[in-house]
Amino acid sequence: MVVLKSVSEVRAWRRRVRADDASVGLVPTMGAFHQGHLSLIRRAVADCDVTAVSLFVNPTQFGRGEDLESYPQDLERDVELASREGVDVLFAPPTANMYAEGYATWVEVERLTTGLCGRFRAGHFRGVTTIVLKLLNVVQPDRAYFGEKDYQQLAVIRRMVQDLDLECEIVGMPTIREPDGLAMSSRNAYLSPEQRRAALVLPRSLTKARQLIESGQRSAGKVLRAVKSRFAAEPLASLQYAEIVDPDTLEPVERCDRDVVIAAACLVGDTRLIDNQMVKLRERA
Amino acid sequence: MVVLKSVSEVRAWRRRVRADDASVGLVPTMGAFHQGHLSLIRRAVADCDVTAVSLFVNPTQFGRGEDLESYPQDLERDVELASREGVDVLFAPPTANMYAEGYATWVEVERLTTGLCGRFRAGHFRGVTTIVLKLLNVVQPDRAYFGEKDYQQLAVIRRMVQDLDLECEIVGMPTIREPDGLAMSSRNAYLSPEQRRAALVLPRSLTKARQLIESGQRSAGKVLRAVKSRFAAEPLASLQYAEIVDPDTLEPVERCDRDVVIAAACLVGDTRLIDNQMVKLRERA
Repeated sequence: MVVLKSVSEVRAWRRRVRADDASVGLVPTMGAFHQGHLSLIRRAVADCDVTAVSLFVNPTQFGRGEDLESYPQDLERDVELASREGVDVLFAPPTANMYAEGYATWVEVERLTTGLCGRFRAGHFRGVTTIVLKLLNVVQPDRAYFGEKDYQQLAVIRRMVQDLDLECEIVGMPTIREPDGLAMSSRNAYLSPEQRRAALVLPRSLTKARQLIESGQRSAGKVLRAVKSRFAAEPLASLQYAEIVDPDTLEPVERCDRDVVIAAACLVGDTRLIDNQMVKLRERA
Repeated sequence: MVVLKSVSEVRAWRRRVRADDASVGLVPTMGAFHQGHLSLIRRAVADCDVTAVSLFVNPTQFGRGEDLESYPQDLERDVELASREGVDVLFAPPTANMYAEGYATWVEVERLTTGLCGRFRAGHFRGVTTIVLKLLNVVQPDRAYFGEKDYQQLAVIRRMVQDLDLECEIVGMPTIREPDGLAMSSRNAYLSPEQRRAALVLPRSLTKARQLIESGQRSAGKVLRAVKSRFAAEPLASLQYAEIVDPDTLEPVERCDRDVVIAAACLVGDTRLIDNQMVKLRERA
């Protein structure tokens, strides 16, 4: 595995790969790899002739007062893990290489970015779509891999790739969870043992919500009240939002009579956690 | 020459061209070809192994009350002209192929788009950058050609291509003029004979401004007053703006002691015309 620091090095590598007619997979990350990242990397390595992983803590997707400065970083360990998984290129650019002096260009996806996390993280998705487009342009992958845990991000990126006529397949991969159900996240490292226990209200309330729909509850309002009442019983966690939305448009639904996504965000102390459950209904009643 | 109507046809063509390792030039146009377009096409045909010309009257770069409905169109003549110049592919998609149902993604270049024409055409440059990025993604040219007559557009596109890490060379080509000095524009067709004569105040006042700087005038304010006084003497034309700006940042300058661009827009009747003059100062005094 080679570690490349500049756009021009990645371009030179990409030209060589194109000459070999090899398929290229990209896994965009902010580092601090956990099993979720590794599941994406393994799938890319299995799917593609060569795999690139980008590691860039993208400042433009953090809002004011968010955790840009404290975001976990461990480049040495990430290099070791990626290398062991058979990654070919780790692209870890300095910020000045991605956002040079005078940088002025932003990609915005309308509608899908206004609800859910978009209501609480102004500018977040603009930063995400801009950096992902840049990474897709530099690496020019045939496939790029994203976790379903960041469900809104995945839907927004799919929309962007389709709208901008990019020829890259976006592959969504299932959320990887701790044995007790908490979705893997680099931010879980912020939690104290007590907070870590309290955080379970997030996956448990969403699992309960999914089960309610699967067993016939069709009223989104009633399902969401069940989520809220679980949060009301957990003093260390405060719910930021819980919504039931269309899987593609992310528009809230009133009736759970088709495939939906139940998505929620909460604060545990200062730590913001998100999770979601997809509900696939065999029959559409 | 083939005329292609869909993104998927262009992609299939592009794959064949890539297999041949041929260089690709793109000339994005809104059709109604005049000598300005033809100069871009000739340069692309001369520079590149294969040349694609796109012909798309992009609705998202027209503001409310602008001339989208009346914009000149003559596909048959354009096809004939492009074919005669040795163009390989004319890409003329229907609007629904470029902006499908649910379209939601926009590219914005900050700062460079707020002054000059940006003050008078809200959303215009967002429409331009979005469609140009889409065309670059579909055609994947090695070089794309734009006229210097739309100077702000050229600077904005250069900025976008650099910021988004696109590997495409943007080639700016000199403004082509009628024998009496009026810059070629599809919109010149809107002018009555009397308006056509009045429109000469635009190129003439800008030429005068350039000459003032070249002969030593360093005050941007004084140069612009000379432009305004020429417009004051032409009752059929009203100046929208005249500015002297940095060629890259488009920031207004006060002192003309380095390379600058003098840019202006005016209305002649309902017809909006733009023009500019680049001033290259050998010494920077």
